Amino acid sequence: MKTGRLEAFSDGVLAIIITIMVLGMSAPEGYHFEALKPVIPSFLTYVLSFIYVGIYWNNHHHLFQAVNRVNGKILWANLNLLLWLSLFPFATDWLGKNHFEANPSAIYGLVLLLAAIAFKILVICVIKSDGKDSHIGRIYKKDKRMNWSLILYAAGVLLSFLFPIVSLCIYLGVALMWIVPDPRIEKTIK
Amino acid sequence: MKTGRLEAFSDGVLAIIITIMVLGMSAPEGYHFEALKPVIPSFLTYVLSFIYVGIYWNNHHHLFQAVNRVNGKILWANLNLLLWLSLFPFATDWLGKNHFEANPSAIYGLVLLLAAIAFKILVICVIKSDGKDSHIGRIYKKDKRMNWSLILYAAGVLLSFLFPIVSLCIYLGVALMWIVPDPRIEKTIK
Amino acid sequence: MKTGRLEAFSDGVLAIIITIMVLGMSAPEGYHFEALKPVIPSFLTYVLSFIYVGIYWNNHHHLFQAVNRVNGKILWANLNLLLWLSLFPFATDWLGKNHFEANPSAIYGLVLLLAAIAFKILVICVIKSDGKDSHIGRIYKKDKRMNWSLILYAAGVLLSFLFPIVSLCIYLGVALMWIVPDPRIEKTIK
Amino acid sequence: MKTGRLEAFSDGVLAIIITIMVLGMSAPEGYHFEALKPVIPSFLTYVLSFIYVGIYWNNHHHLFQAVNRVNGKILWANLNLLLWLSLFPFATDWLGKNHFEANPSAIYGLVLLLAAIAFKILVICVIKSDGKDSHIGRIYKKDKRMNWSLILYAAGVLLSFLFPIVSLCIYLGVALMWIVPDPRIEKTIK
Repeated sequence: MKTGRLEAFSDGVLAIIITIMVLGMSAPEGYHFEALKPVIPSFLTYVLSFIYVGIYWNNHHHLFQAVNRVNGKILWANLNLLLWLSLFPFATDWLGKNHFEANPSAIYGLVLLLAAIAFKILVICVIKSDGKDSHIGRIYKKDKRMNWSLILYAAGVLLSFLFPIVSLCIYLGVALMWIVPDPRIEKTIK
Repeated sequence: MKTGRLEAFSDGVLAIIITIMVLGMSAPEGYHFEALKPVIPSFLTYVLSFIYVGIYWNNHHHLFQAVNRVNGKILWANLNLLLWLSLFPFATDWLGKNHFEANPSAIYGLVLLLAAIAFKILVICVIKSDGKDSHIGRIYKKDKRMNWSLILYAAGVLLSFLFPIVSLCIYLGVALMWIVPDPRIEKTIK
Repeated sequence: MKTGRLEAFSDGVLAIIITIMVLGMSAPEGYHFEALKPVIPSFLTYVLSFIYVGIYWNNHHHLFQAVNRVNGKILWANLNLLLWLSLFPFATDWLGKNHFEANPSAIYGLVLLLAAIAFKILVICVIKSDGKDSHIGRIYKKDKRMNWSLILYAAGVLLSFLFPIVSLCIYLGVALMWIVPDPRIEKTIK
Repeated sequence: MKTGRLEAFSDGVLAIIITIMVLGMSAPEGYHFEALKPVIPSFLTYVLSFIYVGIYWNNHHHLFQAVNRVNGKILWANLNLLLWLSLFPFATDWLGKNHFEANPSAIYGLVLLLAAIAFKILVICVIKSDGKDSHIGRIYKKDKRMNWSLILYAAGVLLSFLFPIVSLCIYLGVALMWIVPDPRIEKTIK
């Protein structure tokens, strides 16, 4: 199978996830600015999740730019990634409506962690299919951001029960770390 | 008509179905883990339906890879399939919110059954158009998974009224049977 | 501008409309079959609207297959069509939840009528751009189905206030009239 | 990176935004025309937002038709634009449900303003990448509509607190100003 339709389907799912999350921010009852107050944490959480989906779209795009063929394992590893990403609206909604409480913050981190593990599995499947000496194999050999993210997400989940505010800063920090597109991949592709 | 736009439209509908289903899992009121408990069966049902839509996307993709031209009958057979697949969010939501009760389990199985029949009709339309000696004709001639699925879904619907838990195991079992991509089609295409 | 991106955007909007309509069928509270009863009219209305969106997708596809270039007028005529089609979920929801009452049936017919007028405007814009002797000009010159639909929708709206059940039969009848793809266009294109 | 996948992803997000906004217009409880009355302002606001998303889709399309390559800055400037556009359903819903009150009207104008600033940033990133003498550089050098829009949106936000009805007229006026596609870009491309 070619990568085209897999990319198009993933793009569709990611576009819907990123847009559906905004439904968590429902219009308040009253028309005073007071009524907007409870929406603010929902909005901030939405922006964070929006950035994360943007990062995944970006990394997903970079990954499949370097891939030629898709086999059954890659296909299901990709669906596995989409499954965990599709939980973002739920986790975002719960966190946004419970202003920085311990449990929603832990669940949010857990979804981030599971999505990151799913992305790592997808990368491993791709490398197995393309070989360790392929573009993608060489790039991810020296990639430390992915492993750091996993550790930081896990730390964020655990810290949620003590200082949820610290967890949220970690989640934001990891996002900022990823916003810069990976120069190694761009270089290797050029 | 070429298959391109039909595939793109179907991909769009499938991407939306798979993502919209997650809206059935609404964020709970409280912020304790207790509040998450009623969400767990919704989540498990969501994962099962997610796998099913993934399977349909995969099989749909394989089917149309082997098709060259689309006529009016194929077009409406395809829309018929999409109609039944679009009921997945409804059936998933009802099953998830009524923890393994008889009726929601029967309706869920009925939707699976009707979608499977719609897929079989689509395959028959394609074979009629391409001829029995075409790739797709030869592949589905020896296909026993499709007929087995129909029988198992029907059994699942009936068993719902006695042991809903058994029905759910059947639905899960059929899904696992399909996760492996059909090697016959992949071979024939290569 | 080429037709490609306009078709892709319209496909996206139509795919979302056709899928979002199913959200009007919310899972009932209880888990008995009794609880499904109020969902049945919603389901039947959903199927009717699903067929209509399928018809529009089909006709839209046929129309733009015969078009080469898109100008500003065609672009806005197309957005005008999408606007009225995007009201299908609303009209479907209201009709489905008010089992065949006069007013929801009139509004449903009105949305059908306005969408049909928008499609006619789009066809006129395309013919103006391509010329009366173009493929599409010749096809729609002898097209009586479009004008008949307009008359029948208008009749349906008016009859809603007397016999809503008759209006619904008219809406269904017009849909069936369109399910057969237009052989004149298929012929002219070939 | 080529512009293709960025355009496809943006198209997907815009198609979903334009369609999801209609969910703000929920079907009324009763079945009398009386019950439709509170839906009318929601409908009018929906039409206005629909036109705006149509304009952004159109301008976005024109912009990227003139662009050859996408770098990381353009990618994130584009996601920034999509973020503010994704707030349209929220702002539309709040304005539509609070018939032309001061605060919802101000928030609606603020979202328009921030989306317009995001579009300006995107244009600047594109010009930086393509050079001032590029097609797009020359076009936007003499563009006064973009700056006028920013001023008018800001005026609309401030006037909301005095005469919300005037603000809404401004928002409508700016939309009408943009409906005509920019002849300078079309000319330059040809």
